[in-house]
Amino acid sequence: MSEVIPHWLTKQADLKPDQLALEYNEKESLTFQELYQASQTVARQLASLGVAKGSHVALLSQNDVHMVITIHALSYLGAVVVLLNTRLSSYELQFQIDDAKVNLLVTSDQLSYEKEKLEVAQKKTISELQQLPEKEVALQKELTLSDPFTIIYTSGTTGFPKGVVHTYGNHWWSAIGSALNLGLSPQDKWLAVLPLFHVSGLSILFKSVIYGMPVYLMESFEPEKVHDALMNNDITMISVVTVMLQRLLEKLDNESYPEKLRCVLLGGGPAPKPMLEQAQKKGVPVFQSYGLTETSSQIVTLSSQDALRKIGSAGKPLVPAQLQIDTPSSQGVGEIYVKGPMVTKGYFNNPDADKKAFQAGWLKTGDLGYLDEEGFLYVVDRRHDLIISGGENIYPSEIESVITELTNVQEVGVIDKPDDKWGEIPVAFIVKEDQNALDEEAVQTYVRGRLASYKVPKEVYFVEELPRNASNKLMRYKLKEWL
Amino acid sequence: MSEVIPHWLTKQADLKPDQLALEYNEKESLTFQELYQASQTVARQLASLGVAKGSHVALLSQNDVHMVITIHALSYLGAVVVLLNTRLSSYELQFQIDDAKVNLLVTSDQLSYEKEKLEVAQKKTISELQQLPEKEVALQKELTLSDPFTIIYTSGTTGFPKGVVHTYGNHWWSAIGSALNLGLSPQDKWLAVLPLFHVSGLSILFKSVIYGMPVYLMESFEPEKVHDALMNNDITMISVVTVMLQRLLEKLDNESYPEKLRCVLLGGGPAPKPMLEQAQKKGVPVFQSYGLTETSSQIVTLSSQDALRKIGSAGKPLVPAQLQIDTPSSQGVGEIYVKGPMVTKGYFNNPDADKKAFQAGWLKTGDLGYLDEEGFLYVVDRRHDLIISGGENIYPSEIESVITELTNVQEVGVIDKPDDKWGEIPVAFIVKEDQNALDEEAVQTYVRGRLASYKVPKEVYFVEELPRNASNKLMRYKLKEWL
Repeated sequence: MSEVIPHWLTKQADLKPDQLALEYNEKESLTFQELYQASQTVARQLASLGVAKGSHVALLSQNDVHMVITIHALSYLGAVVVLLNTRLSSYELQFQIDDAKVNLLVTSDQLSYEKEKLEVAQKKTISELQQLPEKEVALQKELTLSDPFTIIYTSGTTGFPKGVVHTYGNHWWSAIGSALNLGLSPQDKWLAVLPLFHVSGLSILFKSVIYGMPVYLMESFEPEKVHDALMNNDITMISVVTVMLQRLLEKLDNESYPEKLRCVLLGGGPAPKPMLEQAQKKGVPVFQSYGLTETSSQIVTLSSQDALRKIGSAGKPLVPAQLQIDTPSSQGVGEIYVKGPMVTKGYFNNPDADKKAFQAGWLKTGDLGYLDEEGFLYVVDRRHDLIISGGENIYPSEIESVITELTNVQEVGVIDKPDDKWGEIPVAFIVKEDQNALDEEAVQTYVRGRLASYKVPKEVYFVEELPRNASNKLMRYKLKEWL
Repeated sequence: MSEVIPHWLTKQADLKPDQLALEYNEKESLTFQELYQASQTVARQLASLGVAKGSHVALLSQNDVHMVITIHALSYLGAVVVLLNTRLSSYELQFQIDDAKVNLLVTSDQLSYEKEKLEVAQKKTISELQQLPEKEVALQKELTLSDPFTIIYTSGTTGFPKGVVHTYGNHWWSAIGSALNLGLSPQDKWLAVLPLFHVSGLSILFKSVIYGMPVYLMESFEPEKVHDALMNNDITMISVVTVMLQRLLEKLDNESYPEKLRCVLLGGGPAPKPMLEQAQKKGVPVFQSYGLTETSSQIVTLSSQDALRKIGSAGKPLVPAQLQIDTPSSQGVGEIYVKGPMVTKGYFNNPDADKKAFQAGWLKTGDLGYLDEEGFLYVVDRRHDLIISGGENIYPSEIESVITELTNVQEVGVIDKPDDKWGEIPVAFIVKEDQNALDEEAVQTYVRGRLASYKVPKEVYFVEELPRNASNKLMRYKLKEWL
C-alpha cells in the first residue's frame, strides 16, 4: 500500500505562507502562498481543457516562473507532465510526444513557433492558457507516492529514447536523500540554472516544496549573471555541470564566494582533476555526484570534506540508496547497479526496456565503475559510449542511425572527442558507398534537420572501412586512436 | 509495494564510521562503526536462542547502551521488539508479554529480579546474553519499510492496554517529518533522557541512525546532571516532558544555555502558560508538540518562532502529516484526527481496537482540540479522561477496574488533580458496599500490587454516591468540583 502525504505545495502554503518560494527575473518573487494560488488558478484553467487525473501534458519551456506554476498546476490535477528538452529538433520532439501519448502540449510564448510544427490533439501557449476560464474541479489535496508525476526521455544505448516515469515518491525520496546528505538549514536557497526539463534541474523545484525552501531561478547559464547571483543573493546551494563550474572558476579571480554558499553540487559527467583542484584552492565547496534520469537526480555524492582525499570519486550512495558493482572480471571494474526508492519503477509503455534495465530490484545503469577499499565509487565510463557535451547526454547510436539514413552512407561510427569548452563533442567516421556526392557539410546539415544541434558531429571523417572485431562489433577505441 | 532501504545502522557505519553514535555513562561512547559491530555480535548471540525474522522479543531495561545495542541487534534479525515500561507492575508486564505473544524476554541486569516473576518461554539478562555463542546467520542488509519493528503498549479509554505496532517505515517517516521541521545540521547532538521504552525516547535512537547523528544517552532524569550536560556537552536538541522542563528552568538562574542548544522539544501533555513564558524569558527554545504512541512521536509541532504568538498551541502538523477536527458541535472543538505515514497501521492482534481507532485512513485520537483561524492546533482535552502525571499516561478506567476488584467496593471514579510537581495526579472516589473494612491505605496497597506506582491514587475519598447523568454515565467534572 502506497503512502499518502498532503500535497507538498499546499502544505508549505500552510506552514510558511509568507516564505519566499521562488525568485526569478532577478527582481521578482513569489511566496509559497502566492505560488500555491497561482498554481491552483492554472490548474482550473487546465481543467477547462479537459486535463484530469492521468492526462499526459507535454511542457516545452525554458526555465521561467510559468513553467514552475504549470508543473505544480498539473500535480493538482493528478496529470502527468512530459518534460521536453528545448534543444531537441522537431523530429525528436514529435517522437516523444507520440511515444508518451500526449493529450496536450503547452509551450512557453518564446517557443510558440515549435507549437506550429508539432502534431498534438491540443496545443496551447502559456499566454493562451492564461486566457482560459477556470473550471471548478476538485483539486488534489493529497499525493499518493506511487502515482506517476513526470516523464523525462533519455536515450538508451540502442538509440531509441525511452520515457523515464517518475512517481511523486521518486521525487520525494530524492529530495529526502539529498537533505540527509547535505543537511537542511532555514537559511537555504538553491540556485536553479540547470534546465528544469532535466531531472537535475527539476528536482530543485521539488526540494523547494518539500523543504519549504526558496529557489533562485535563472533562465539560462550566463557566467557573469550566475557569478553575480552567487556573490550577492544569499545563495547557499547550486547545481551545476562541469562546463558551468569551469566558467565560474574562471570568473573567480582573487575573490571567494560568500561563506554561506555551502554546496556546489556537480553532476553531469566526468570532472577533470585540475578543475577540482582549482575549486579546492579557491575554497569552492564542490560536491561531486553521480546520477541518471532514472535515479531522479544524484544518487551517489562525494562530500566536500572527502573531495581532496578522494579526488575523482563520485562518493557514496545516499542514505536510502544502495550500489553494487557487477564485476565479470577480477579487476574490480564492472557495471554499476543501483537501488532505492528514488529509482524509477520503469519506462513508459516499454516493457522491453524495463526488462533490460531491471534485475531483482536493481537498476543496471550501463555505466562502468569500481569501488575503492573504503567503498567510494569511481565511474570509469558512462554508459559505454555515452558522450557528455556541456552536460547533455548524447548516444552515438542515435546519431549513427540518423546518418545511416543518408543514401550514400555504407556505415558510420560516432565517438567522443575531448573538447576544452564542452568536455566532449561528437565526431563521425563514415564509409561511403561511392566516392562522390557527400561531404562534411551535407552530413551536418542532414543531422541538424533531425536532431538537436549539440548532437551534430563537429567533425566528419570519411574512411575506407571501420575497425571491427572478429564478431563484427565496432571497436570504438580504435576510432579514438585514429583521432 | 513497500519501499526497501539499506539497513540504517549499516549505512551510517559505511558513511560515517568514525562519527560518534552514542555517548553514555557521561564519559563513554561508541562510533557508528562500533555500534554496528556490537549490534551485529548481539544479533548473532540472539540467533543462537532461535530469534529470527518475526520473533517477538520483549525488552525490559532502563536507558543504557545495552538497550540500544539490543534494539539494533533485533533489527538485524528482523525480530519485533516489545518495549516494556520499567515502571509497570509484574501484573501489567505479564499482560503485555502474553498479549504480544513474546518468545523471549531480555532484561537489563539491574531489572533481573523482574525476570524471575514473569512467565515467558525464554528469559535472559543482558549478562547472560553476552555469554552466548554467536550463531552464523544471515543478518538483514535491508529494511522493508512495511515490516513491523516495535510494539509499545498504550492504554485506551477502555482500560485494556493495546500494543501499538510500529513499522520501520513509521519510525523512518517520523524522523524525516521531524528533520523537515527542525532542520538538520552536522553539529546536531540529541540528548535522550526520556525512557527509550516510550516512543518519544525511542524515536531519538532512530533519528540517530537515519541522520547519522550522535545521541547523548542518560539513564534517568536528574535535573542537575541534565543541566550540566546541556551546559557542557554540545547538546543541540533535547526531548522533555513538562515536569522536566520545569525542573530545568528552576536550575537556570541568571545564566542561559549555550546558543547551540537550538531545540527543546516539549511533549507529553499540557504545558502551563507561565512555564512557557518563563522559558521564553530565559531564552530557552521550546518547541511545543503533540503526539501519541500511535504517531511514532510528535506529529504536530509549534516552532520556537511562533511560541510566544501562539502560546498554548501545539502548532501545525509536520510536512508528511495531516490533521482535522471532527466537530459535532458548531463550537469548533472536536475530536482530533490525524493521518500520515508515521501513524501506526494498527494494534497488534486487535482488530476491534483497529476498527474503533481508524476511519477512512485517519486515526481518531480521542483527544479534543480546535484550530485557530491560522490553522494552529490547540489541544483542549487529552483523550477525554486521560491523566498525565510526570509525562506518563494514566487512564482512569484502568485504575477503576482494579479498584472494583476489591470486595467491599460498590463503585469507583478516578479523576486527575492538579499537582505542582507532577502536573496531574490520580485521585479516587469510592462508594463502599458497607461502611467497614476499607480505608485509603488498603486501596493504595491493593493498586500498588497490580499497577505501576504512579497509577496509585494519591488521595482516596469515600462517598455516599457518585454523580451520574440520566443515562447513568459518570460525570467526572462533578467529581472535579467536589475536589
